[in-house]
Amino acid sequence: MSAEPVLFPRLVAAANRDWAAYIRHRFVLLLATGELPEACFRRYLVQDYLFLIHFARAWGLAIYKSDALGEMRRAQRLVAATLDVEIGLHIDYCRGWGLSEASMASEPEAPATIAYTRFVLDRGVAGDRLDLEVALAPCIVGYGMIAAERMRDPATRLEGNRYREWLEMYAGSDYQGLASEAAAALDEQFARRGGEGRFLTLAHIFAAAARLEADFWKMGMEARS
Amino acid sequence: MSAEPVLFPRLVAAANRDWAAYIRHRFVLLLATGELPEACFRRYLVQDYLFLIHFARAWGLAIYKSDALGEMRRAQRLVAATLDVEIGLHIDYCRGWGLSEASMASEPEAPATIAYTRFVLDRGVAGDRLDLEVALAPCIVGYGMIAAERMRDPATRLEGNRYREWLEMYAGSDYQGLASEAAAALDEQFARRGGEGRFLTLAHIFAAAARLEADFWKMGMEARS
Amino acid sequence: MSAEPVLFPRLVAAANRDWAAYIRHRFVLLLATGELPEACFRRYLVQDYLFLIHFARAWGLAIYKSDALGEMRRAQRLVAATLDVEIGLHIDYCRGWGLSEASMASEPEAPATIAYTRFVLDRGVAGDRLDLEVALAPCIVGYGMIAAERMRDPATRLEGNRYREWLEMYAGSDYQGLASEAAAALDEQFARRGGEGRFLTLAHIFAAAARLEADFWKMGMEARS
Amino acid sequence: MSAEPVLFPRLVAAANRDWAAYIRHRFVLLLATGELPEACFRRYLVQDYLFLIHFARAWGLAIYKSDALGEMRRAQRLVAATLDVEIGLHIDYCRGWGLSEASMASEPEAPATIAYTRFVLDRGVAGDRLDLEVALAPCIVGYGMIAAERMRDPATRLEGNRYREWLEMYAGSDYQGLASEAAAALDEQFARRGGEGRFLTLAHIFAAAARLEADFWKMGMEARS
Repeated sequence: MSAEPVLFPRLVAAANRDWAAYIRHRFVLLLATGELPEACFRRYLVQDYLFLIHFARAWGLAIYKSDALGEMRRAQRLVAATLDVEIGLHIDYCRGWGLSEASMASEPEAPATIAYTRFVLDRGVAGDRLDLEVALAPCIVGYGMIAAERMRDPATRLEGNRYREWLEMYAGSDYQGLASEAAAALDEQFARRGGEGRFLTLAHIFAAAARLEADFWKMGMEARS
Repeated sequence: MSAEPVLFPRLVAAANRDWAAYIRHRFVLLLATGELPEACFRRYLVQDYLFLIHFARAWGLAIYKSDALGEMRRAQRLVAATLDVEIGLHIDYCRGWGLSEASMASEPEAPATIAYTRFVLDRGVAGDRLDLEVALAPCIVGYGMIAAERMRDPATRLEGNRYREWLEMYAGSDYQGLASEAAAALDEQFARRGGEGRFLTLAHIFAAAARLEADFWKMGMEARS
Repeated sequence: MSAEPVLFPRLVAAANRDWAAYIRHRFVLLLATGELPEACFRRYLVQDYLFLIHFARAWGLAIYKSDALGEMRRAQRLVAATLDVEIGLHIDYCRGWGLSEASMASEPEAPATIAYTRFVLDRGVAGDRLDLEVALAPCIVGYGMIAAERMRDPATRLEGNRYREWLEMYAGSDYQGLASEAAAALDEQFARRGGEGRFLTLAHIFAAAARLEADFWKMGMEARS
Repeated sequence: MSAEPVLFPRLVAAANRDWAAYIRHRFVLLLATGELPEACFRRYLVQDYLFLIHFARAWGLAIYKSDALGEMRRAQRLVAATLDVEIGLHIDYCRGWGLSEASMASEPEAPATIAYTRFVLDRGVAGDRLDLEVALAPCIVGYGMIAAERMRDPATRLEGNRYREWLEMYAGSDYQGLASEAAAALDEQFARRGGEGRFLTLAHIFAAAARLEADFWKMGMEARS
């Protein structure tokens, strides 16, 4: 049994309204009630496929940035989770939505996709592995929180909801375990690489990443139907 | 006398409509006739200040990526041109528009600013110095082309134009010299680090950067007045 | 059936004496005849363990430097080959030589280990993925050539040779397949990212890496018995 | 008047014998008495020229790793100090020792030069700017301490000492100011990016860099006369 995470809730508290605007974005609320227009979801799916490629690059970078075998292996598992599992699931799932891998791969990246992915990679290269993991946390831990929160919300409707599978995947125990592990890793990194002096900068990175995630939902919402 | 640049025009030709949409963006056309709303220009100025910080970082990265003293010194001159001259001019110029340095530094980066700057830095870190210089070329060489083209356009009106100083700075011989040097450097880099095999990838980088520059103008246009 | 590699033999030919001094180093010849002092082999084993950590980091970097899923997956396989297989085999093998993992992990890196590993990583970060793979080739492809050449040499003695397992592992079909794949990848990278203009620089990187590998054997030879 | 540095003396205390072995290396003691063989000094000079190129690259990297204009400008000054002043002085000085720039530039890097420079760059890329500055401190601050300590040593002989100019340059107020500024910057970085949790890792980086500097002197001592 691992201890309750400490750094992650502090980052969430500091990000405050940016965090709420991300995890309770209209896109997410409509997805949970099943009212999200399909064109919006499709737009999101395609860009999320393009996003995952850079997400795998970020964990490859984390391997390079490791200085202990245990750290390397955790980053390696996340590369594998992305390239061997997530992208595969994504491709299967998207096929069900009429989107082929080739069509997704040939779609241009939206500005919101570029902004978020390259922001994360830049923090990761310019900073150390703690900076990188903090920039990734709104995604990896945030998706777990979003799905769990929606599952507890009485307004959420699973029956007949086209997006049920998405909610259940991120609320499921596999993904929740991954998210908890990522939150715990932040504490381990903060103990070894951090210190209060860094908190302000880390909080800025986290809040900026949360805003860029909210822009990602917004990009989905703006899909032409 | 230096030879006519070769790679740059090929990249422009390959980027085609993306290039035209960038260098003849409505923002630019209205700026040249003096009809651009001031709120749009102010928005652009503030974000361009934030942009310049990452532009200087990119040339710092180019110093690191150099393998010859001459290359390092050219990158060093561009860091100096940015930090010692451009940012200073920018601050002076913005003061004339009622914008203090402190207020600009505290402004959040727009998504369009993040997308373009971090895209350039990512290409620069993941690729080699040629990739980096190609990603920077739409900015450094493009601004020179934009100003020169507008100066030749009969629709341009300098008399009484609030933006005249901007046009004259980028159309002036100092900046035009800098832009020519940057275009010439692309050929030198392509000879040493390139080859036809790379052209397709370089053309993709260039076109993507041109689209992100067009988004930057769009962000200016969308300023609330 | 894959085509014969083209770039690798050209790099070997250009490295010439540096290459021969590496692949036919006295350490290797004595290992093949079984006459290498055990202290030398132990010294090598410990430093090779420390080397593998940076080798895995280099392939993590290659994931970050990829721009296609296929490229990422090949780099991912090499991270896995290193962290899941090679380091494990190494630890088992070293245990047979009386070396525990903890004792190896606490040993300081020799200057020769630092020089080679950080040279590779620096070429990889400052250059693109082709530079990185060329810097890695003397190790990954070279070890395969060394073992295969020694196996064909009548002076090699397997019977009663303490180092037989080492020779058989690198001459075995698993490792030879890995080495062939790495040589083939150089051609694929050279086609997409290269061109004759780069050959001279790549040849310098390759020759420098071969000299640093020879220094690595020398460091083994100089072990105090 | 700036405060006494705090982090630097702690790093020195933690590096202990590695530090003493570096700053009181036989090369340095013989240089101060004028007894160092000229071949050793020439060897050192040539490799130090090659070292400076990577030293400038490291400060270019620091520009990229900055997140405030003040930080960028300090790194920019150190690039300029290296490329505009130090390399120039070095070339002039070496000319007095019969070494042309062309001959130095064509000399292969010694393994000790590769090991130290690439170790610094790797710490700088994999870590953040604090890691980079700590890896550079044994050089930039250490040279100032070495020269100052030798100047206070009664065994040092300036009269008729061929190496007097070297001692006086590094003991002179210009260089001593640069070294003090670098030591002060460590405290500023540690306050913003550090915390006690990082001390152990930083101390390891510092001690490793000091050992690699000592290897650099050793490489000079081993020059064939």
